Parts: sequence; structure tokens; C-alpha cells
Amino acid sequence: MASTIESYVRDNQTRFLDELYELLRIASISTLPEHNSDVARAAAFVAAKLNTAGMENVEIIPTARHPLVYADWLHAPGKPTVLCYGHYDVQPPDPLELWNTPPFEPTLRDGNIYARGSADDKGQMYMHIKAVETLLALHGKLPVNVKFLIEGEEEVGGESIAKYVAANPAKLQADVALVSDTALYKEGIPTLCIGLRGLIYTEVECSAPSRDLHSGLYGGAAPNAVFALVEMLSKAKNAAGIIQVPGIYDDVQAPAAAELDSWKNLPFSEEEFLANEVGSSALTGEPGYSVLERVWARPTMEVHGIAGGFTGAGAKTVIPAKATAKVSFRLVPGMVPEKVIAGFEKFIRENTPAGTKMTLRVLSGGPAIVVNPDHPAISVAARVFAETLGRPTVLTRSGGSIPIVGDFASHLGIPTVLMGFGLPDDGLHSPNEKYKLDNYYTGIRTIARFFEQYGV
Amino acid sequence: MASTIESYVRDNQTRFLDELYELLRIASISTLPEHNSDVARAAAFVAAKLNTAGMENVEIIPTARHPLVYADWLHAPGKPTVLCYGHYDVQPPDPLELWNTPPFEPTLRDGNIYARGSADDKGQMYMHIKAVETLLALHGKLPVNVKFLIEGEEEVGGESIAKYVAANPAKLQADVALVSDTALYKEGIPTLCIGLRGLIYTEVECSAPSRDLHSGLYGGAAPNAVFALVEMLSKAKNAAGIIQVPGIYDDVQAPAAAELDSWKNLPFSEEEFLANEVGSSALTGEPGYSVLERVWARPTMEVHGIAGGFTGAGAKTVIPAKATAKVSFRLVPGMVPEKVIAGFEKFIRENTPAGTKMTLRVLSGGPAIVVNPDHPAISVAARVFAETLGRPTVLTRSGGSIPIVGDFASHLGIPTVLMGFGLPDDGLHSPNEKYKLDNYYTGIRTIARFFEQYGV
Repeated sequence: MASTIESYVRDNQTRFLDELYELLRIASISTLPEHNSDVARAAAFVAAKLNTAGMENVEIIPTARHPLVYADWLHAPGKPTVLCYGHYDVQPPDPLELWNTPPFEPTLRDGNIYARGSADDKGQMYMHIKAVETLLALHGKLPVNVKFLIEGEEEVGGESIAKYVAANPAKLQADVALVSDTALYKEGIPTLCIGLRGLIYTEVECSAPSRDLHSGLYGGAAPNAVFALVEMLSKAKNAAGIIQVPGIYDDVQAPAAAELDSWKNLPFSEEEFLANEVGSSALTGEPGYSVLERVWARPTMEVHGIAGGFTGAGAKTVIPAKATAKVSFRLVPGMVPEKVIAGFEKFIRENTPAGTKMTLRVLSGGPAIVVNPDHPAISVAARVFAETLGRPTVLTRSGGSIPIVGDFASHLGIPTVLMGFGLPDDGLHSPNEKYKLDNYYTGIRTIARFFEQYGV
Repeated sequence: MASTIESYVRDNQTRFLDELYELLRIASISTLPEHNSDVARAAAFVAAKLNTAGMENVEIIPTARHPLVYADWLHAPGKPTVLCYGHYDVQPPDPLELWNTPPFEPTLRDGNIYARGSADDKGQMYMHIKAVETLLALHGKLPVNVKFLIEGEEEVGGESIAKYVAANPAKLQADVALVSDTALYKEGIPTLCIGLRGLIYTEVECSAPSRDLHSGLYGGAAPNAVFALVEMLSKAKNAAGIIQVPGIYDDVQAPAAAELDSWKNLPFSEEEFLANEVGSSALTGEPGYSVLERVWARPTMEVHGIAGGFTGAGAKTVIPAKATAKVSFRLVPGMVPEKVIAGFEKFIRENTPAGTKMTLRVLSGGPAIVVNPDHPAISVAARVFAETLGRPTVLTRSGGSIPIVGDFASHLGIPTVLMGFGLPDDGLHSPNEKYKLDNYYTGIRTIARFFEQYGV
């Protein structure tokens, strides 16, 4: 019996997993300079595996920060070209003490691979490489033309790939991009994501007295940098979750009625979402919007971290001179990043307490994305996905941001198929991040089939 | 010519300074467990020097945390007894990078000793020991009975000495306590402090989701621990500096009209205070009160430090699960610590945002203190101080807290002479803390004279 996609993946499943483990063991944390050499090692690993799979023109492309990995296979004249994107960098693993097993020692438990980056995005990016290997091994050729562009800065804003895409439209020219960095709506439900929120990530620094002061001697007369920052931040979003930065809601485009309707038919339980995913005593957010609207189609402001003054053990009675906060805004379709940044700058200026100074630094920013569900690649993907999992494919959005999808749209003029195999409780960016082992293999098979069907 | 206090101090000035340097080199940071052995070394140093000075019954008294040092000399029958108090522990030196010379390598520049603890309180506490040495060396006896009780937990709440004083009133019985842990109102102006604010120091912890969450996937629906803490804290004090914890101002006793009048005659310049001490662009605090009233006679709430979420370099898009803040209240006469704590607990309970939990931990607490200016020891101290510096002594308050003064009042029934030789810009608790070298020697001479005159 001739080998099929199914049998090839089955016959090679141990090696496919061993290779992924090898990649997961590399602590390629892009935001921490002390891990720069790990990031470089991960890039080299990806390049080597593209080469072994049979891809051509494999390149490690140096950038101002972390390298890109490019490869192509362009021997299917008349067939469409797919640009595969993924990232080999990961978020920091802290707080380390909350991990049940070490973040960079992948461990299989209850059918899940536990490791930082298992779902976001090493495990998913690597499926593309194994899908290509499978087809080339079976047939000696691919049914479509394929390019790969894999980055190492996704978790730190993706500046280098954005520049590269803008500067190399001819080299990267394709009919569609394929990205696996999203999740199934729910276990077993084939899901294509056709909308992503944008993101502006900033750092606000507040300074007050010229040095930390004794709070007994100066308390009551000297400005306090931590309290000033607390005051400003508290004014930027009210207790109901409504952002107070003027103009922030002006350009928001609401989803079409049909899309909103389809969300109502998704098997969503607010109780399960609260208990199994969020794990707090109540949800928050804007009144008058459903949870899915709040996380998919409404802008947000979040404080990701705050630090200032004395935070060691015990007591130190200082009036702190400095404090900083990491603050982001998620954007929905219609919102213009530059306008949001300008609005936040103005808000800070007008709400800086007396005796203090505030500075805003924008670390990254990109708009929201929506993809036309009638594009042929989306139709093929929806069909293949439904066949593989045996259920109709649902079209959703994600509240997260994949800035590269915007760059592909604006610089290459192509849409992106967001075909991810994660699960909602994978714990991306959290301790004990996991990726379901079955979904790793299902993903490889589904992507190989997508290439096949898209090439028909 | 017979030796005098002046000539003895002059003849021994190099040794007096070398000894102080030796003490300042010991990093006796009481709040950091990794410095426990340094704290113990500082206690041993103090005990040894009390012994060499001629004090008797020198004891290092173990406690639950850092040791006390006791000594006495009780051979002046019919004369009053002075209980000398000081502390040999210091605040942490961070932020280290702001020190011009290392905090634990005392350095003389422009007539000042730069080192952590130089003014607060090693340099001042050590003057007492050298004053006793001077008198015993000159006369073979002291003009009054003297006891020493030196602690190593002043910067962490002073729990052990509070217990010890409460448990040993007979051993510590005295007519007055002498404390040098305050500052001259201004260079050259003899100053006795007759009022201190109290202090309640707390830690507030907020928890929201059960783990850090991806802010894209959950932003808009999940509670954020940092933002919840920011919201609660911002409500606890308004932009005008008025504390919003209900009942906090109910028991505040305003200073008498005569005391308020005397403050108006002090050479205080708001411009100089702002420029030379605070170093910000404006002062803050309750409208309708002068700066001196705000720092000496009004309660305050300060946030000393805050930490939560991701605060490393770069970007991490988490909704943080936990955040903590160090929060204190300064109390003025009339205010009852237990009532303030209960009020803050209630305020937190009523202002905890939906989906989050807050816990309050009280690290230390003590009431404000006022001393009767007509007490004989205060009169003698004022006269001697005026003679030494050649100007009339002014009576002030301090916004800081010296909890032991309250313990001496309640358990031993004695007032405290607060005769300090620091300067307002000494930078207590700040980088580049200093103590003026001249004031070290002047302090030794003035304290020796105080013993002489109080014994007449």
C-alpha cells in the first residue's frame, strides 16, 4: 500500500516529537538580552530543519536584533504560492515557581506537551515544516509553491520582520499567507480566525522628587512618583472598564450583524470561561457587550506591570522618586494606532499630577486586521479543516494581535489564513503553557492537505 | 591646664572618627535577612565600645530578631537617671547606582561624612557613648546615673525593644530618656523636637485571575490585579492629598495656637524647601495648611512601593494575577492606631474591584508623641544647647516617627529629650546620606554638658 499523509505522519511521529522537544529546550526568550545566543540557536535549528525537509534557498537573515529564517520551494508553475509564517521566539517564563515542570524541559502529561512556546508558537510553526517534509517525502514535490519566513521577535514587537517585509515585496510575493498561531474555538471544532485586534504597547515613567525621600520628614508636602502614576492610570479607565482617553472609541467599527449573530451560536459558556480559563470570582469589562464582543471587537487598556519605590521584604519609609508602568491598548478595526498614541500622550499630559513628570515610550504598535471569508484560500482551508476534524468550520476572531498579518496585507497585498491548532486553555504567556499532542499531529496532516487541495 | 570636655574631644577627634567609620562600614541592614550577621556585628561593636568607655553591666540581649545592647553606670546617688537610646541598624542603601561613593565605605567630602547610617542613627547614637567616655575619662565618674538601651530593629518596626521595655520597667527605670535621632531645624540653630508623628506601615496584596493571562485573549473580560490595586489606592487619597479613608481625621488634635505661632517665626522658606530638599517642580498636600503643619501636624497616606506583573525590559502582554503595595499612614496626636487600621481595612473591603481579592498585612504601628516643654530635662537641654551653639533653642516637631518614645512614655512613664544634630538635607533613607563632621563633635560636647548640668 502506498504511503499517505496519514501513514507518513504516523510512521514518523516519534521523530516529529523528538525534534519539537529539541526546539522547545532552547530558551529563545527574545525580550531578555541574556538569551540572545539561545534565540540564535533556535533560528539555526529552524533553518537546518527546513533544509532537511527539502526546502531550498534556506537563509538565516541577520537583522538589527534577532534573525529571520527564509526558505522557498518554487517548482509548481501555474500553482498558487503560500507564504508560511511563524515565530521561534517565546515569552519569558516567569513566575518560574508556578511551573509544575521546568519551562524549557518539555514534559508529556495527560496528552499535553508542557513547555514555554509549546503552543505559542514553536509547536504550531514546526507543523508547517513537517507538513512540507511529509509531502516532499511522499511525492518528491509540492502541490503549490511555498515560501517560509520565520521570525524571532514576535514577542517583542516584530520590528525586524516588519522592515523586511516592507523592503522585500518581490522576494516574498505570494497569493496567501498561512499562520498557525491561534487556537481552535474549542476542542474538536475546526476554527479559522478572520479578525485580530491590534496592539499598542507602551511604557510610562513617572518621576517626582529628585531622590527617594523620608516619608516622615516630607510626607504631606512632597509629591510621590508611585502615587502620581497610580492617580493617572486610575483616571485612564473607569471602574466599569470604559477607557477615558478622549476619542478612543471614535473610529471603532462594530462587527456586521451577521457576524455578531454567528458568535451567538458558538458554544460559549460564561461560567466555564470564568471558572476554567480566567479563574477569578467575576468577569469585568464594558457593560452592554457580550464577553466575545469585549475580547474580540472592543478596544481595551491594560496595565501589564508596575514597579516603583521599595518592594523588598519588610518596611522602608520612602517617598519614591520614580515609578514605571507597562500599558497597552488593544485596537479593533477602524482604529488608527497613531491617533490612539496621540490621544494617550495628551491624556497623560493633562493628567500629570503637580510636582511630577511623566514620559511615554511606545514600544510597538499595529492596527487590527479582518480577512475576507470569501477568499479562495479561506474556503479551501475551511473545507479541509472540516474534513479532517469531521465538523463544520467556524469563523471567529481573536482578541490577540499578530502584527505581521497587517504587514502582509499592506506590503504584499495578500490575506492570511489563520489556521491554528491551540486550545483556549493552553496558557499562552502563562506558567504551564501546554500544547495538545494530538493537535500537533492533526495540524501537520491538515496543513499538508491544505497544500494539496489549494494546489488542485 | 586641666583637661576640659572641649580639650578631651579635640585631643581624641581622630580616634572618635575612626571608631565611627568602623561602625559605619558594617552593613547592618535590619530588613534584609542576608545581612543578619552584619547586624549582629554592629551590636557587638556597640557593646565593646560601651565597655571601653567605662559603662558597666554591658549586655547583648538576644531577641526574636536583632539583639539589644544594654549598659549602665549607677554610682550617682540622689542624681537623676538618664536612659540613652539609639539604634545601630540602617535602611537598605538602594538604589545603589545613585550613591557617589559606596554606602558602607564612609567618605569625608566638604566636611560631611557620607555613608548609610551616618546621620540615621549610628553617627548620633555613637555621640552618647563618646560623651560618657569623655566624662569618665576626665572625672572618673558621671554627674548623673546613665543607662543605655540600643536597638537593631528601628528601621523594621522595633518590635523587640517594644516588648523588652514593656517587660522590664524596673530595670529601665529612669527620669528621662535621651534620643539623638532628629535634626537641627537649620544649620547652627539649636533645636529640641517635642512632637513626633506616629506610623502604621502595611502591605496590601491584590490577586485577580488565578494565573497571569494573555492580555489579547482575555483583555476586556478578565480582572487585572495591578489595575485593581491602582483603582483602590487612587480612591484612598484624592488629588488634593486629602485621605478618603472614612473617619481618619476624626480624632486629629490640632497644635495649640501658641505652638502654631512659634512655627511661623521659624526661618522657613518654601522655595528653598522645594528646591534644596524635595527637588521637584511643586509641593503637594492638603490645601489650607502650611508646609510645616502638613509635615508635622497632619496625617498622611503614602505608597512606598508597588510591584506587580511584568516589569523587565521590553514587552510582555500579560494580565497580571498579583500585585502588592507598601502603604503607610503617619498619625498625629489624638489618632488611635487601631482605629486607623480598622478604617483602612474597611475601606479596602468596600473598594475591592469585582473579581479581585485584597489582603492587608500590618507590619508595624505606633501613635504620635508630644513632650511637655516645661519638664526640667527639656529646660536644661534647651539651655545647654543654646550655650553650645550661641543661639536660642527652638522647639519643633518632626514628621517622622520614633516609636520607642511612645513606649518610654507608656511603660516607663518618662518623657524623652529629642536632641538631634542632623541637618534637614542629610538624606536619611536616601542615597548619599551624610552627617556633618562638626556636628558629630558638637553633639558629643553638648551631650556631655547636658549630663553635667542635669546633674547639678
